[in-house]
Amino acid sequence: MAHRIITVSRQFGSGGREVGKRLAEALGIAYYDREIITAVAQQSGLAEEYIASISERGVNAYYPITFGHTFSYSAGIIDPQVEVMSEQNKLLRSLAQKSDCVIVGRCADVVLREYEPFNLFIYADQDSKLERCRARQSDSEKKLSDGDLKRRMAKVDKDRSRYRALLTDSRWGDPAAYHLCVNTTGWEMHALVDTLAPMVKGWFDQKGK
Amino acid sequence: MAHRIITVSRQFGSGGREVGKRLAEALGIAYYDREIITAVAQQSGLAEEYIASISERGVNAYYPITFGHTFSYSAGIIDPQVEVMSEQNKLLRSLAQKSDCVIVGRCADVVLREYEPFNLFIYADQDSKLERCRARQSDSEKKLSDGDLKRRMAKVDKDRSRYRALLTDSRWGDPAAYHLCVNTTGWEMHALVDTLAPMVKGWFDQKGK
Repeated sequence: MAHRIITVSRQFGSGGREVGKRLAEALGIAYYDREIITAVAQQSGLAEEYIASISERGVNAYYPITFGHTFSYSAGIIDPQVEVMSEQNKLLRSLAQKSDCVIVGRCADVVLREYEPFNLFIYADQDSKLERCRARQSDSEKKLSDGDLKRRMAKVDKDRSRYRALLTDSRWGDPAAYHLCVNTTGWEMHALVDTLAPMVKGWFDQKGK
Repeated sequence: MAHRIITVSRQFGSGGREVGKRLAEALGIAYYDREIITAVAQQSGLAEEYIASISERGVNAYYPITFGHTFSYSAGIIDPQVEVMSEQNKLLRSLAQKSDCVIVGRCADVVLREYEPFNLFIYADQDSKLERCRARQSDSEKKLSDGDLKRRMAKVDKDRSRYRALLTDSRWGDPAAYHLCVNTTGWEMHALVDTLAPMVKGWFDQKGK
C-alpha cells in the first residue's frame, strides 16, 4: 500500500514547522525537516551549512541574455548546487518510499507529486508572524527592528518562491497548488492540530490509502 | 455573547454552497444564501432576478476619466444598484446579530468584519469544477461545450472578484483574506464536512466565543 505523505509549505514565521511536527506526532508518523539537510550532507560530503544555504533557495544560476562566444558558463559554481538539489530530491523520494511521513519545505509537494501527497500551505498575518519570530529569536537577533525582521521574512519567502519556480509552473503560496491552506493567526497550535489531524487522516481514509 | 458567524467565499463550481449548507447542518446553525436575495427583494420591492444580478456583481459604475462639465453622471442607473448593495449589507448585519449562522457569498467576510467571522474560501481544480457543473446543470445547459462552461465559470468568479474590490483592498481568493482555504478536489463532501465542522467549532471554542 502506498504511504501517506503530507507536505508542509509555509511562510516564514507562520509556525508551519510546528504544525508539521505536531501533526506528525498526532498521526504517529515520521517527521522530516532539518534531518534532510544532515542526510544530504552525509551523502554528498558537503558541509551542512552549505547544504542549508541551497536547500530551499536553489542555485544561483545566471541565465545568459545573449548566447554566443561572449557567454561564459561558470560550471564550477553551479554544479555542486545542482548536485545538492538532486541529492535532496533523491532523498525525498526514498523517504516517501520508506513510511508515512510529514515533510516540511524543500518543495516536497512538487518533487513527490507521483506519491500523491496531501499538500498543506501554512501562512499567517504579518503581525502574528512578527510576534512568533520575536518569541523564538536569539539574543543577537533581538536587536533587529520590526523593519529588519519584515525584510528578512520577505527575503526567505522570496527564496522559497524562487526555488519552487525552478521545479514547477505552479506558484508558491497559490492555493491552487495545495489541498488546504491554513492561516495560523489566532490559533493555539495544539487546538489547531487537534482538528487538523483528523481532517488529513479523513482525506487518506476516503482515498482508501 | 457574540454569535458564531461563518462566511463562505467560493469559486464557481467548487461546491462551496454545499460545504456551507452541510457545515450549517453539522453545527446546527442557520444557513443563508439564496434567502438573502428574497429578503432584499421584499425589503426593496425590486424583483428577485434583478437583485440576483447585482447581489454579487455590484454596480455597473462607469468611473469618469475626466472630471468637469463634460462628465454626465447617470444617477438614475446607478442608484437602485447601490440601494440593493446597501440593503443587502444591512440585512447581513441583522442576520449576524440574530444568531449563529453560515453565510455564503455576498462579501459577508468583509461586510461583517466587526463580528469577527470565521472566513472560509472554497476552491477546486478546473476539471473537478467542470464535472460538478456538468452534474447539476439543466437540460438546456447540457449543450454548452467545456469551453463555454469554463468561460462562464471565469466570468462569475471575475464578477465576484470585482464586487469585492468595491468594498475592500484585500483580493478575492487571496489566502491572506481568509482563515482557511479548502480545495474540494477529490473530497467526498460529507467526509470533508465531517472533519471541517470540528475545526471551525474548535476555532470558536478556543476564542471563548
